[in-house]
Amino acid sequence: MSNDYRPMWEELGLDLDAHDALLNVLNQGYGDIYLSQQNRPETMAYFDFVMSEVHGLRIRELLDEKDKGRKIVGSYCVFVPEEIVLAADATLVGLCSGADFALEEVENWLPRNTCALIKSSFGFKLGKVCPYLECADMIVGENTCDGKKKAYETFSSLVENLYVMDLPQVKSDPGKTLLAAEFDRFRQAMEHLTGKPITAESLKYGIETVNAKRAALHRLYALRHADPAPISGLDALLANQVSFYDNPARFTESVHKICDELESRIAEKKGVFPEKTPRILVSGCPQAVPNWKLHHIVETSGAVIVGEESCVGERGTRNLTDDTGGTPEEMMEAIVDRYFQINCAIFTPNGDRLDHIRQMAADYKADAVIHYSLQFCQPYLMESLPVENTLKNEGLPALRIETDYSMQDAGQLKTRIEAFIEQLR
Amino acid sequence: MSNDYRPMWEELGLDLDAHDALLNVLNQGYGDIYLSQQNRPETMAYFDFVMSEVHGLRIRELLDEKDKGRKIVGSYCVFVPEEIVLAADATLVGLCSGADFALEEVENWLPRNTCALIKSSFGFKLGKVCPYLECADMIVGENTCDGKKKAYETFSSLVENLYVMDLPQVKSDPGKTLLAAEFDRFRQAMEHLTGKPITAESLKYGIETVNAKRAALHRLYALRHADPAPISGLDALLANQVSFYDNPARFTESVHKICDELESRIAEKKGVFPEKTPRILVSGCPQAVPNWKLHHIVETSGAVIVGEESCVGERGTRNLTDDTGGTPEEMMEAIVDRYFQINCAIFTPNGDRLDHIRQMAADYKADAVIHYSLQFCQPYLMESLPVENTLKNEGLPALRIETDYSMQDAGQLKTRIEAFIEQLR
Ligand code: SF4
Ligand code: SF4
Ligand code: SF4
Ligand code: SF4
Repeated sequence: MSNDYRPMWEELGLDLDAHDALLNVLNQGYGDIYLSQQNRPETMAYFDFVMSEVHGLRIRELLDEKDKGRKIVGSYCVFVPEEIVLAADATLVGLCSGADFALEEVENWLPRNTCALIKSSFGFKLGKVCPYLECADMIVGENTCDGKKKAYETFSSLVENLYVMDLPQVKSDPGKTLLAAEFDRFRQAMEHLTGKPITAESLKYGIETVNAKRAALHRLYALRHADPAPISGLDALLANQVSFYDNPARFTESVHKICDELESRIAEKKGVFPEKTPRILVSGCPQAVPNWKLHHIVETSGAVIVGEESCVGERGTRNLTDDTGGTPEEMMEAIVDRYFQINCAIFTPNGDRLDHIRQMAADYKADAVIHYSLQFCQPYLMESLPVENTLKNEGLPALRIETDYSMQDAGQLKTRIEAFIEQLR
Repeated sequence: MSNDYRPMWEELGLDLDAHDALLNVLNQGYGDIYLSQQNRPETMAYFDFVMSEVHGLRIRELLDEKDKGRKIVGSYCVFVPEEIVLAADATLVGLCSGADFALEEVENWLPRNTCALIKSSFGFKLGKVCPYLECADMIVGENTCDGKKKAYETFSSLVENLYVMDLPQVKSDPGKTLLAAEFDRFRQAMEHLTGKPITAESLKYGIETVNAKRAALHRLYALRHADPAPISGLDALLANQVSFYDNPARFTESVHKICDELESRIAEKKGVFPEKTPRILVSGCPQAVPNWKLHHIVETSGAVIVGEESCVGERGTRNLTDDTGGTPEEMMEAIVDRYFQINCAIFTPNGDRLDHIRQMAADYKADAVIHYSLQFCQPYLMESLPVENTLKNEGLPALRIETDYSMQDAGQLKTRIEAFIEQLR
């Protein structure tokens, strides 16, 4: 990234030395993991550019938006409805962080036994290295897992303008009523933040914009059904990751361009890996930028990842919001309906997630499922055992992985994953 | 326990060999920890008897009740309203388990990183050693922490008639509405279980019975304000533990007898430890029978425990249910009001718990607070850091302990606790 951004970072209050260190790690990781891939679609060049400018051009854009009076909202969960944020004329950026930072300092604030994602979000704040966090006018937390729910209590002393959304734990009628009440409270909070009333027109715009983004990703997902796989799991994961902070319209357009290229590739039977390469479905905890660890290990061990049942993946983007409503009330109801279907492990019971895994495994013609849990993530760790047992009973090989962001276990993981893939051939 | 109970245990489906092993450990632990104490109140003899018959006489009583058509309900959380259970003419017993059992088998069902309490509840079921669990007609789970919430999904395949209660995460109006709806659903479930309608009269009886039990414990707590402490923390903890499964009326009477004796002791300035012995308030996760680890270590290290801010303690028993209502609706509302005040760490934010700790520390003239967390218990571990920091800033020494049920860390804990107590003198 150009040095021209240093004054911008400084103005945002970043710790420039620490930030340099982070960018170096990020750039080197991206080079090693992404740019070393063979047979990539040419249209992935857009994402290479986005990543090279992730703390540069995109932040400049957000600051330009702010200069024009637009508000930036940061979030840590796919339950935060982007439709409503856009309808209030604000911009939503995902803050879920995928790298360890300032770990020692973090452990003054959080128990050691906290998942890497939560530790990372604290580390980026304490280390002053995240320009997204620093330029957000409002940060939205949510009562999902115990870890996040309780961590926000502490986080509120580190950031200004933290808004916490309550979420139900059961997909019951009272659960849905709670979600509807909370989305309505959020609508009001957004109006209050931006000073702009949310209207039928603006809600419709919000729904259409987010649906278009999701539809583009759905198109991408469907193309991953092909064998040979026209795109690596790593590249598809990156598209999902970038969807959280890129400009929605530009992102949508770029994904469609990739899809055009992938369609030609499929017609030519051209893939990133040879036909009949073992096909893996990954299911579990979200993998936020720059957490490419599992995908990298799998795809350098003789298999290709064809789908992600994850919030950075299909759990986050499936189901469009019904856009046929005419009034704000109807549209808000449609938004609640859509989000209430998200099969996060914080819900109990959560049998639909298992159904979705099964359906994805069939659609993507997966040979096996790898269940990915972050260490200390109780919701997904708890679900991983019945998921593994059920899939195995149904004849689908399954492997449970429990890991964090460090590279200490990379060798051991690679050995286990290679052995697992070997038995799929 | 007499061998006469073996046919009874066999009929309940217990694994007699495993159960013998458990009872041996229990009896030996009780002998070593409880009977070795000096200067105990004579009236504690009742609790010695209860403990010696915990799987014998009390189970016989419950089975006699069942023979007469009464239903037994097991629960794992102080959110399950005993008032409603009693009003439906059923008996509530606490199932929270305080010892490791069948750990290896448990880890086929639960992630390694699960708290000892949850593992224990599975271990007692898988090992077939808990007569309470086996004689329960209905088992009530609840959506509290992630660990329990998700574990019940699995537990439902191990036990019959598991009922899961949803709980709010925020003390908001919608949160209270949810609790009220869930208590009403529970009322109906209890009526359905027993076939007996819950009336104004029976609810009043339930409220009065449970209030009487709580009031007896409140009297006991108040007597612990005295210096020298008239009763050990271990003995007071035992009274709290026994309150979960003893007959309520008999329990209430027995606690009052202890209180009578403690009043004479206080008048005579007689204590279990000398005057000016450092006084510790314990705060944190519930300590279920036979989890006497922390209390034993503290009270053999030169301090006395004067209070428990815990669900097996004052968090569980504080606040009576208003008994002035005339209609079932008014009484149900009073029950909701009372339970909605419980300051469990599953709520966010949960500042009232900190206030309660402060208030208890002052009332009990505590010299220090030990925060007790079970390993992997995210809600209490997350709260332990701000609790420690706040208390220390206010000049009250505080020590955070994170442990499980094994004795592996006992030596290390004792060293830390001795050093902590040393500095209080
Ligand atoms: S896994 Fe659950 S808590 Fe995490 S981003 Fe997804 S919906 Fe939110
Ligand atoms: S990975 Fe698990 S523990 Fe971590 S924030 Fe997500 S749901 Fe919570
Ligand atoms: S600590 Fe919370 S979950 Fe545990 S028994 Fe108490 S109220 Fe229930
Ligand atoms: S000790 Fe903590 S993790 Fe364990 S059951 Fe209680 S609240 Fe849940």
